[in-house]
Amino acid sequence: MGELFREIEYVEEALRRYLNVIKQPSIEIEEVPLEEALHRILAEDITANIDIPPFDRAAMDGYAVRAEDTFGASENNPIELKVIGESKIGDPFDGEVNENEAVKIDTGAEVPHGANAVIPIEYVEEEKDIIKVYKQVAPFDNIGKRGEDIKRGMLLLKNGTELKPWDLALIKSIGLKQVKVYRKLRVGVFSTGNELIDDATDVTKLRGKIIDTNRTMIKTLLKELNCVIIDYGIISDEIDEIKNAIKKARSETDILITIGGTSVGERDFLHKAINETGTPGVIIRGITASPGRPLVLSLIDEFPIISLPGYPVATFVDFMEFAIPVIEFLQRKRGYRVPNKVRAKLVRRVSSKPGVRHYVRVKLTKKDTELLAEPIRITGSGVLSSVVKADGFLIIPEDKEGYEAGEEVEIILLRNRIGVWE
Amino acid sequence: MGELFREIEYVEEALRRYLNVIKQPSIEIEEVPLEEALHRILAEDITANIDIPPFDRAAMDGYAVRAEDTFGASENNPIELKVIGESKIGDPFDGEVNENEAVKIDTGAEVPHGANAVIPIEYVEEEKDIIKVYKQVAPFDNIGKRGEDIKRGMLLLKNGTELKPWDLALIKSIGLKQVKVYRKLRVGVFSTGNELIDDATDVTKLRGKIIDTNRTMIKTLLKELNCVIIDYGIISDEIDEIKNAIKKARSETDILITIGGTSVGERDFLHKAINETGTPGVIIRGITASPGRPLVLSLIDEFPIISLPGYPVATFVDFMEFAIPVIEFLQRKRGYRVPNKVRAKLVRRVSSKPGVRHYVRVKLTKKDTELLAEPIRITGSGVLSSVVKADGFLIIPEDKEGYEAGEEVEIILLRNRIGVWE
Repeated sequence: MGELFREIEYVEEALRRYLNVIKQPSIEIEEVPLEEALHRILAEDITANIDIPPFDRAAMDGYAVRAEDTFGASENNPIELKVIGESKIGDPFDGEVNENEAVKIDTGAEVPHGANAVIPIEYVEEEKDIIKVYKQVAPFDNIGKRGEDIKRGMLLLKNGTELKPWDLALIKSIGLKQVKVYRKLRVGVFSTGNELIDDATDVTKLRGKIIDTNRTMIKTLLKELNCVIIDYGIISDEIDEIKNAIKKARSETDILITIGGTSVGERDFLHKAINETGTPGVIIRGITASPGRPLVLSLIDEFPIISLPGYPVATFVDFMEFAIPVIEFLQRKRGYRVPNKVRAKLVRRVSSKPGVRHYVRVKLTKKDTELLAEPIRITGSGVLSSVVKADGFLIIPEDKEGYEAGEEVEIILLRNRIGVWE
Repeated sequence: MGELFREIEYVEEALRRYLNVIKQPSIEIEEVPLEEALHRILAEDITANIDIPPFDRAAMDGYAVRAEDTFGASENNPIELKVIGESKIGDPFDGEVNENEAVKIDTGAEVPHGANAVIPIEYVEEEKDIIKVYKQVAPFDNIGKRGEDIKRGMLLLKNGTELKPWDLALIKSIGLKQVKVYRKLRVGVFSTGNELIDDATDVTKLRGKIIDTNRTMIKTLLKELNCVIIDYGIISDEIDEIKNAIKKARSETDILITIGGTSVGERDFLHKAINETGTPGVIIRGITASPGRPLVLSLIDEFPIISLPGYPVATFVDFMEFAIPVIEFLQRKRGYRVPNKVRAKLVRRVSSKPGVRHYVRVKLTKKDTELLAEPIRITGSGVLSSVVKADGFLIIPEDKEGYEAGEEVEIILLRNRIGVWE
């Protein structure tokens, strides 16, 4: 691997340094109907334009009254009030409650003008138009006040929030039918390598050619991030072809992801092509990850390029650790991602080289209430199939030399399910 | 709430009992192109039809040789071999390597017939068509064996797997362009309630009407589960209208989700409508959840109906606890879901009623490396806005009476991000 990798960087430092030099592009804003805005990124602050509930409403079935008219009422000394109407949900009473009057009311219905409390039905005896009230109530008893859920002027959602189902419901509750979101991020993708093909009529007859599976993986990972994907296909190992593809992507997309050609070998033209296309060019070359070491992070003017290694597990690890946070930064997503993790007991010792961050594929099994994590033994170049059979990754950070059998460790889940292989 | 709720059930028991009586519908299978199969449920076992790699390949740059021809070679006693050709990636050597012959080979290229080892380039001196070999190699040294990643006949993916990006890549690697998946589950949805409206030109002028936000939330939650949604809109509180909507859903969908009308009140016709539509009818009525108690789970012949309460936080809690596992069961997803959880230190005591499972909305903040969980104080009926501002739920199980300040608790995240409100 030699001298070009001498200055490889710690995973987290490399990411921090790269995020420090890239800029969020100015992304156009579009308005979309609410139910189509799921997982889109809000491009405005949403402030309540109304109170919710928009009126005082009964918290119980009963009678809406002026509290002062009930003062002194008790089991032995009921007070009589005149029933002048009824307030139902969707069919409120439009008149006013005056002295010694009451309006029958359902839970959730609007409290009529003049009334300031609700007497629950169990403290009332009804006799035609007259009720006998056996308990006094204080002002606002059994009333849900206007604006108690949402007050006009209240900040409901912040610019940059990824919209979840309950966010959309809240936005709908204040009467909005559309919402402003950033247009989807456009991500260019290509693979490099003369050995790659996309299609084979008969894979058993392939001679030295390899099906480009990484691009399919990356494109569908980008779909999970709600990006628009511009697929530039397979680019051959010719420096000019790579340069042309970079220039095309730069004019059509917000960020480019390339796959393959990142290690130091005679056919790895990628970093040269990037540096010849513009400045500042390559910023990070090589990180302390295993697998995932030959990562290249570049910038041409303000256009970011993430070049993932071609070895499938490394492609995935570097996508997870670098492409996801960079893309979410460009998307202007608020907050920080928390990967889905579980704690599990390690069943076998795993060791690692100090100074290198290891990503160990593990299989999880349930034993009583406990989860057991078993590192998967990789034979040969066994790659994609080992990710598919893994439940998650155990990360051994650069400053550790491994974990002992029996230790409780955190596993980053690859699926949000366990037991797919049982 | 009186006698109808006397036999309410523990949350987990209610789910278990319901899952025991419902059946997986026979869902048609369809074939879709690989990149469109993301998150679809695999409807076949995928078995490798080929070896990957499909040929022995060089693990290093060097010369492909017959190992036995190198026996005895050393720094002081080089052995000479005749170079008869070159094997490159995508351009293999088609002849055969015979006694005392060698073929120049690149890493990853096909090892030619006759050869059984690769001598790394650093142990070789080249002189025109002759190489001097300074080290002996054993059979299979520096060769990646055919089938070492995937062996023909190996089970790659099981029926019922939700397809993730690396699964699709693996399927592509064995030459498949399409994959068999179950058709998407069809889920019917309606809300009940005379007070509900879907649209208002001016929400500030609503009189006793409420915008149906729950249906928007449930529909987008179903979108996250990759379902086809059949929206029956808002059904008024008339027993015959509800019965008609149930019958329609039963003929058009795999499962029906209704919202509202599940508590015991004069306008709650829902359970009556279900029981009058068919048998066995209502199976579970009321669970030990707060919020979320008035849940109704029913079955008409083999058609499942989940009736969620109309109070928005309860709607959400019961969807999460019941609708998700039931839908995933009907979808035939393998394995069991692991919700995204984090551990956090509780900053304030929370208490709960024994025998009731409480869902406490909490806000998370980062303090140094630690996460702090603060229960959100809910005033009045404050509902949707409290979910939107929460980072997650703390669940207090039925057999606990709460948690103390300072205790480490698990929080189920509502978003896969933290810090959206910072």
